[in-house]
Order: sequence, then C-alpha cells, then structure tokens
Amino acid sequence: MSSTATALAHANIAFIKYWGNRNTELRLPVNGSISMNLRDMDTRTRVTFDPSLGEDSLTLNGEPQVGHALERVHRLLSRVRAMSGLRHFAAVDSENTFPMGAGIASSASAFAALSLAASTAAGLALPERALSRLARTGSGSASRSIPAGFVEWHTGSTHEDSCAASFASPQHWDLADCIAIVSAEHKATGSTQGHTLAPTSSLQGSRVESAPQRLEICRTAILKRDFTALAEVAELDSNLMHAVMMTSTPPLLYWQPATLAIMHAVQRWRGQGTPAFYTIDAGPNVHVITQQPHVKEIEGRLRQIPGVKDVLVATPGGPAQIV
Amino acid sequence: MSSTATALAHANIAFIKYWGNRNTELRLPVNGSISMNLRDMDTRTRVTFDPSLGEDSLTLNGEPQVGHALERVHRLLSRVRAMSGLRHFAAVDSENTFPMGAGIASSASAFAALSLAASTAAGLALPERALSRLARTGSGSASRSIPAGFVEWHTGSTHEDSCAASFASPQHWDLADCIAIVSAEHKATGSTQGHTLAPTSSLQGSRVESAPQRLEICRTAILKRDFTALAEVAELDSNLMHAVMMTSTPPLLYWQPATLAIMHAVQRWRGQGTPAFYTIDAGPNVHVITQQPHVKEIEGRLRQIPGVKDVLVATPGGPAQIV
Repeated sequence: MSSTATALAHANIAFIKYWGNRNTELRLPVNGSISMNLRDMDTRTRVTFDPSLGEDSLTLNGEPQVGHALERVHRLLSRVRAMSGLRHFAAVDSENTFPMGAGIASSASAFAALSLAASTAAGLALPERALSRLARTGSGSASRSIPAGFVEWHTGSTHEDSCAASFASPQHWDLADCIAIVSAEHKATGSTQGHTLAPTSSLQGSRVESAPQRLEICRTAILKRDFTALAEVAELDSNLMHAVMMTSTPPLLYWQPATLAIMHAVQRWRGQGTPAFYTIDAGPNVHVITQQPHVKEIEGRLRQIPGVKDVLVATPGGPAQIV
Repeated sequence: MSSTATALAHANIAFIKYWGNRNTELRLPVNGSISMNLRDMDTRTRVTFDPSLGEDSLTLNGEPQVGHALERVHRLLSRVRAMSGLRHFAAVDSENTFPMGAGIASSASAFAALSLAASTAAGLALPERALSRLARTGSGSASRSIPAGFVEWHTGSTHEDSCAASFASPQHWDLADCIAIVSAEHKATGSTQGHTLAPTSSLQGSRVESAPQRLEICRTAILKRDFTALAEVAELDSNLMHAVMMTSTPPLLYWQPATLAIMHAVQRWRGQGTPAFYTIDAGPNVHVITQQPHVKEIEGRLRQIPGVKDVLVATPGGPAQIV
C-alpha cells in the first residue's frame, strides 16, 4: 500500500551567512546563520512511498532527474526510511514556483519540502527541530526553511542540536526582498563544493570567530526592527563571506559587473534616505532588502541598472507545511 | 645663496600590498610589501632652498598648491632641514609625466623624487636606505620608488630599519604593466585615510599574519621568473587587501563594474594561456601585468572591455635619480 504526502516550503535569504562546514557529511556548519523565509519563492514536493517501486525516482518541474540530484534525494529518503522503519522506495515529484534558471538557489526550499513530505508520508510526525535537522542533512540552508519567518540556525555541536528555530514571525516586520537577477547561468562552483573550499582562505578563521557578534547584532536588529543596524551588519556579513570566497584556493569570484553596480547603487540610495541594503549568496544576483512601502521604488530603480535582467519580489514567509 | 637639485622617480605597482600602519606618523607598515617600478610613470621635482623665501611653496604641474598637499611637502622639507642643519625655506616645482587625473597614484613617485631632490639640494648625500626611509615618511609606498627595479620594503621595527631595497634589476624580467583606466575620478577615500581604517576590519589581522609567506612566494617567483606563481600570489594578495577594505568600518568598495569585468577577463585569458594577472590599488583601475611580447594583445583586448577609458603601458623602471 502506498503512502503519499505533499509539502510546500519557501526559499530563504540569509542576513548572516552559512559558509563552511565542520562536518561535510552531516552539514554541521562552522558558524550560525540568520535568515528570512521568502513567501512565493516556493518548492512544492509530493513524496509517494510505494512497495511496487524498484528504486527511488525524482521528477523536477516535470523532468525526470538522474545522477547527482537524484543521489542527494535518495540519501535523504534513506535517512527517513531508517528513522521510520519503512523499506519502500519513493517517487518524488517536485516543482518550484519561482522561475527556474533565475539563479535563485532552490536547494533550501527543495530539501525542506522533501523532508516534511517524506517524513509525513513515512508516518513520522517529526517535531520542528527534528525536521530542521533532517532538512539540514540534504542542504545546510534547508534547515532554515522549516521554521516560520525570521529564523536562526544554531551551530550546535552534534547532529542532534544543529537545527534552526524561528525567533520572529513573518508578520513581525514588513521587509521585502527585491531580487535583482543579473545572470541565470548555472554557477561554475556550486555551494556544496564551495563550502569545502572555505577553509583554504586565510580569512575564514576570522570570519567564523566574529560570527557570534554579528548574529547577536542581527537578531537584536530584527527584534527591534532597526533597519539601519540590520543593513550594516548584513552588508558586512555578505562582504565577509565574499572576502573568504575570493581569497580561497582556487578563488571564487561570484560577483559580476552588474552585481557591483547594484551594490554601489544600494549604498547610494540608503545614503539618500531610502531603506535598502544588499546581500549576496554564492552567485551574482543581488538581494536588495527594503521595507514594503518602498518596493515599487526599489524595483523600478533596479530595473534601470544595466545588466539587471529581472527583479523578483518576496515578503517574509511562513513555515514549511503539508498542503 | 640658493641651492637647487632636480630628481626623477617612478611610480611603482605593488604585487604584495601595503595596507595599514603600526605607526601612522612615521608610516611604519604592519606588513612588508613588494613592487616593481614603472618606467615612464614619472615625477620630476625641482627643489630650491632660498634664504629669500618666507615659507615653503609647492607647484604641481604648473599649479600652485596650498592646504593638505603643501602641508605634507612642508613636513618632509622640515625633516630634511633637521637632518642637514639648513634653515631656509624651499620652492618645490613638481611635474608628473603620466596623465594627471588618470587615477594613477602619484604620491609614491612624488615623495621619492622630493626626498632625493630636497636632500641633495640641502647638501646631504644620503645612502639609498636613508633616502628610502625619508621618502617613506612622506608616503609609505614612496619608500619603494627609491631603489631600482623589483623592490621589497621591509617592515622593520623602527624608523631606522623600515626601508626598501632592490632584489632584482629592471632588466631581470621583461614584465609590463598595462594599466586599464576605468575612472579618473578622485578617490572618495584617499590612501592615507584608508590606512587608518585597516584595523577596523576583522580580517586585517589574518591578512597581516600571512603576509610573510606571500612575500616569500612573491620574491621567489620574481627571482625565478615564474609567471604563474607570481600571478597567483599577486591576485590573492590584491584580493586580500580589497577583502580588508570592503569589511572595514566604514567599508571601502573601490571596485567599479568595469574593474570586475577586467578581473574576470584576465583570469579567462590566463586560463587560455596568455600570461596576465591583475592587481588593484586603492581605486578602480586595474593593473594587468603581462610579459612584454604580449603587451599589444593585452592592450587591445583591454580596450574592448566596456568601461575601459584608456590603457597606459609601463615596463620595469630604474631607481630615483638626480637629473
């Protein structure tokens, strides 16, 4: 008898970044991170455990997947089988509501949705912490797409305590993320591989050592809705991560000319009184965070910058949920 | 009775960068640096000590200077007066042979030429080490424009031993510097002020701590004429300095979109077998180092990159000299 569940999870944008693991296999990070879930940037995933299946399968936006993508999903399903005692293989069908190839990282929302759907279909009713750490083993930042709103992923010291928790609801603050799409090209170096290069930078140790202070400043800024404080710490943290990336061996230079044009523009706008700051993941696209009344203004300005191909807008999102 | 001397000194480009002082007044650096003098990027300076003058004066490319520029020159002249016992004021007339407003730092060649001309006019016959440290007090990198060719500025521990020395002649290696001019605008934050911000970056300590290794790799690469090794260590060191800059408080983001376009292009060209690497000072222009047979090719390619306004070319230069 087959068992099915469908879950939906949001992408998230980190204000304090995750870069580098203490344990690659378990994706135990070297530093904690803080993020905001992105409503409408969703992955919806259906998992069906079926005794008639001879192997796990994965369909992504209607396309059957093999190789590395399937292998990562298979490993998470095996973990769920080990937890539940279920032995059937599963068919996984996953869709992203945000445009594919827009350069938005989908692994966070994908592994969060997969973890919730698979564990539910397997008959497990995992508490949020357990779901978050299960998602983490598939993709580190997926741990943050399980809880709602503004989320902190605590480093922890073992698999058991390295998981994320919400510290403010999506309604807490009317932030918005205007994502300036600079390039939709596939990253030359993906995040999983990039994380393994972090220790080769002589700057990684200092970045990690000072992360607890930034986490404290960031958490407090969000709780107090202090936009300026959040802007400063988030831009600093983004620059610190890219500093590590560009000084690793081999160096990772994810920024493109338009990336830098946006960074300069955002700093200029903020200097002129418009609430806006940038944060950049392992790619050239720029997340410009503002407050919701300024979305149209920021979006319009971003579209005028040469090299900006599109702008997507997201507001704070809720938790991963069964649908 | 007046006494006059005229000296010429070259600008230099650092492969291992100087960023941050232990002692701001004396410009004692936190780490050593290595550079190449740039022939034809010259400052020519005439100093005339004259008993009839009521104060020091400075003319730069024919324009009388006051304020900060004059004050810096006055301080160096006062140091020369203290060393020589001479008490007259001086008229200083200085010209740069490289285009003004091209965004090329002129303080290195300017203070090297001034130190040699002023000390000579004052009747001092300073050995190279003493000249280098005198120049250093005017502008740190000027210490490196005193000796010939490929030069290392040793950190030292006091005013006496913090000076630069040549370790390879200009004829040692047929390198060339193709300077891509991206912006001729005046820097928002000059180097003197920037150096004071270096300690505010949490990454500066790690950069400084690992500098001796890079100095060793760089010196050896130059002595062995190992282009690939020099390319890798110089790009890394440039990225490390900009990593510190962009994570200081306030952050200094000197790169412009075209800066990044050139960085990516240069890495692509090198991957395709053309000897080229980038190094960037406290500004948006990019020094693309190649070997002389490739100058035309590199220059032509650089001129095709949008945002490149001009390309200047320099080969290894000799020492500061009386003319």
